[in-house]
Amino acid sequence: MGLKVFNDLAELEPAQVDALLKLARRLQDSPEPRALEGKVLALLFLSPSLRTLSSFQAAMARLGGGAFVISPDMSIHGLETRDGIVMDGVAAEHLREAIPVISSYGDALGIRAFAARENLEDDLADKQFGRMRDLVKVPLINMESAIQHPCQSLADWKTLDELKVPRQGGKFVLSWSWHPKALPLAVPSATLHMAAMRGMDVTVVRPDGFELPPAIMDKARRAAAASGGSVTETSDRRQAYEGAHIIYAKEWSSTKHYGDRVADQKLRENLQDWIVDEPSFATARPDARFMHCLPVRRGVAVTDRILDGPRSVVIQEAQNRMWGQMAVLYQMIGPGA
Amino acid sequence: MGLKVFNDLAELEPAQVDALLKLARRLQDSPEPRALEGKVLALLFLSPSLRTLSSFQAAMARLGGGAFVISPDMSIHGLETRDGIVMDGVAAEHLREAIPVISSYGDALGIRAFAARENLEDDLADKQFGRMRDLVKVPLINMESAIQHPCQSLADWKTLDELKVPRQGGKFVLSWSWHPKALPLAVPSATLHMAAMRGMDVTVVRPDGFELPPAIMDKARRAAAASGGSVTETSDRRQAYEGAHIIYAKEWSSTKHYGDRVADQKLRENLQDWIVDEPSFATARPDARFMHCLPVRRGVAVTDRILDGPRSVVIQEAQNRMWGQMAVLYQMIGPGA
Amino acid sequence: MGLKVFNDLAELEPAQVDALLKLARRLQDSPEPRALEGKVLALLFLSPSLRTLSSFQAAMARLGGGAFVISPDMSIHGLETRDGIVMDGVAAEHLREAIPVISSYGDALGIRAFAARENLEDDLADKQFGRMRDLVKVPLINMESAIQHPCQSLADWKTLDELKVPRQGGKFVLSWSWHPKALPLAVPSATLHMAAMRGMDVTVVRPDGFELPPAIMDKARRAAAASGGSVTETSDRRQAYEGAHIIYAKEWSSTKHYGDRVADQKLRENLQDWIVDEPSFATARPDARFMHCLPVRRGVAVTDRILDGPRSVVIQEAQNRMWGQMAVLYQMIGPGA
Repeated sequence: MGLKVFNDLAELEPAQVDALLKLARRLQDSPEPRALEGKVLALLFLSPSLRTLSSFQAAMARLGGGAFVISPDMSIHGLETRDGIVMDGVAAEHLREAIPVISSYGDALGIRAFAARENLEDDLADKQFGRMRDLVKVPLINMESAIQHPCQSLADWKTLDELKVPRQGGKFVLSWSWHPKALPLAVPSATLHMAAMRGMDVTVVRPDGFELPPAIMDKARRAAAASGGSVTETSDRRQAYEGAHIIYAKEWSSTKHYGDRVADQKLRENLQDWIVDEPSFATARPDARFMHCLPVRRGVAVTDRILDGPRSVVIQEAQNRMWGQMAVLYQMIGPGA
Repeated sequence: MGLKVFNDLAELEPAQVDALLKLARRLQDSPEPRALEGKVLALLFLSPSLRTLSSFQAAMARLGGGAFVISPDMSIHGLETRDGIVMDGVAAEHLREAIPVISSYGDALGIRAFAARENLEDDLADKQFGRMRDLVKVPLINMESAIQHPCQSLADWKTLDELKVPRQGGKFVLSWSWHPKALPLAVPSATLHMAAMRGMDVTVVRPDGFELPPAIMDKARRAAAASGGSVTETSDRRQAYEGAHIIYAKEWSSTKHYGDRVADQKLRENLQDWIVDEPSFATARPDARFMHCLPVRRGVAVTDRILDGPRSVVIQEAQNRMWGQMAVLYQMIGPGA
Repeated sequence: MGLKVFNDLAELEPAQVDALLKLARRLQDSPEPRALEGKVLALLFLSPSLRTLSSFQAAMARLGGGAFVISPDMSIHGLETRDGIVMDGVAAEHLREAIPVISSYGDALGIRAFAARENLEDDLADKQFGRMRDLVKVPLINMESAIQHPCQSLADWKTLDELKVPRQGGKFVLSWSWHPKALPLAVPSATLHMAAMRGMDVTVVRPDGFELPPAIMDKARRAAAASGGSVTETSDRRQAYEGAHIIYAKEWSSTKHYGDRVADQKLRENLQDWIVDEPSFATARPDARFMHCLPVRRGVAVTDRILDGPRSVVIQEAQNRMWGQMAVLYQMIGPGA
């Protein structure tokens, strides 16, 4: 179909997502080790990564291409991100040069951005990523920004298909989990949308003060309306988990006190019991599965028992990152472009 | 033609440079994704890099080969560089082993050296790089040393050709720029020589105390004599910029106080107005372009207005690093070897 | 023959080692740049490396495949290694997820483990590596653990063959060397076993308190019995070196005070004369060679005179890491699998 930007599943038609999933499966079953020969993926990491860092390099190698990685913790010149500044400090290079330069070496560019988490409106508008996006002339992959994580969503959708979770009538619970720090909204936002777009009945369960922003909820509800799914929100875990096919745990920051670390900390200080354990599944379907995008803190967001037991599909999700991204790359800079 | 060392454009005949430029263009227009299949480039970075780090990995991938990177800030054993030392300190590995080992894994080796900037004679003789060069038995690429940067020069020459700057009669201004720190002489030396060797009329403009060393100037003058170009030097910017096709900005250390950071700092403290801005182009040709090797400090060496405007070709220069290096690799370890 | 795990030469039949060595030589002489096309090697480094880091990436590239590297000093999320812990500290990811995830992206996985060096029994049982090994479902390469280093041993065996050191009757001296710190037992253990398995007459020479553990010695003696070689141990260097074909220097920790850094330090404080120099070779064979796995501290374990002279084959050993590993990979995930 040809992909120029992979930023948000919401920007694709459901048929396009299905085409990507079908292609991902085909590449998994029938290797095409020369599909991207001579092609280069430039990878810019402005925040930490393990799966993304590994899976994109592996994806390119499996298709016969190559990748290179740039991140500020390497021996580069320090990266300035602020516009209109006199650069007489430590950083010797500006993102306004670094991004065009790096992308000029690649057939496509992947950017792992950072979430400023200072202002909710800015993050919902993906302001930082948008500024970088404007500098790029080659096909672009969002490898997680303040509010998007389309590669995770594609991998999770593939995982749900493999688990045969029904699209219509599948119950998907996005369950807030405790974490010592306030984490970004990218994965919960993207996951909610993915589940709604897939046609499932989605329940978001979170403590008060951690509601997902109305803009995110509304967007998901529109996707659910189009797909035949539904979106509801509650703070009642017992009710939320009832009949669930999937409990998808995710840690995120308080939206009530977004950007206010002290108030966020205070709000979460008594919420350590928001951890997924076997009793959480008491009223779920017997074959209900546990999902998480990783990294996950054992004994914090979820117990060892769940992670090491048969309910967990977290490794399958992680592996599907690679197959999904191979499909994206194939349609972006390969034979499917 | 076969290349064993790529260290200094001055070591090549003009016809060899032209052959490299022609090959670079051919590889840019007609990919050869298997030209270097099974070939490996070893890359040693002893100082920071972004373009070099990225463009060499991308170059190898585009030609079907591979590369690996070693730098002291990675989790290696610490690299000792001093000869004749009892290694009972922190560093557990000596460059005298590290370089032969790394190069034994590659078909060619690239070294990004550091400029000691303690003694001008040592740096002009490229003493540190020479010691490393003696340890290498495979084809070697100078990825910037104390006094050389041939990959940058090849890229800049290609850029000038693309801009149709005339070889005979083209006016090229190498313009000293302010920077908070004393930077090496590699790029100004290499750039001056490249421009003279290309046959242009080159003006070096710099404040007093920042004269390029006589050895560098004399070498460039000999190249200009052979190519039909010329080399002049001045501290008068207005005069220097008049009729220029190119203003090439570069920061470098005081040569009068080479290695004396305090005296250098004192000498540069009132020179912040050595910044390239639109008024600098007042008497230049209307279509005059701005060049810089990057990284560049915005608002310090050049204004945002120039970098973001139509005069700047800095991204084109950076991209040409890759195409030029592909030609070098092709002639060094590929079909052209 | 097909290899699922490359962990210890002792787990292979001598004929299998010979097959690997023959294959390594063939790949060195006749490149097969598409043997591993589309294949990926995942590399996890939990401790520093230079040769291993470089040679595995180069090995995959020479065979047409790709590799990616993960290490805790990269911008990842911090790796927790302890089991059963509540992860409310700095590390955001557990090895129990990281290893399955990384290996899910590779056709094979290499792990460079760390030696805890707290408890000799644990390290002899390779407890840390074993815990990681249990998490891996793809073919696995031990890139050095607390007690193994099979890639080094394969490279050293190849080097000995190239030097035409006789298998039967070759005298191999494993000679303890001074080092400011207590180093792991992996290389001395693996080297001793390799030399015994190759059929040579092996002498371990070390100061009192640095005896290799009985389990290691006994295992080597059994290998020697099967191969027609022998294993002896002494603290008398003059006697040990007599008639030697090879002096193989290696630094290791006190086994008498294993895990007790203070006592180890006290024991080694007067042993700086355990350095290999030309006089060490006085009673050795005239053509005796010096071997070391690197990194080596010049002027500490061995003098510059030896390292820079004709006896040293350390670079040849290092290069053979790559050729040996290519054979392993070829049999693990390539045409020989």
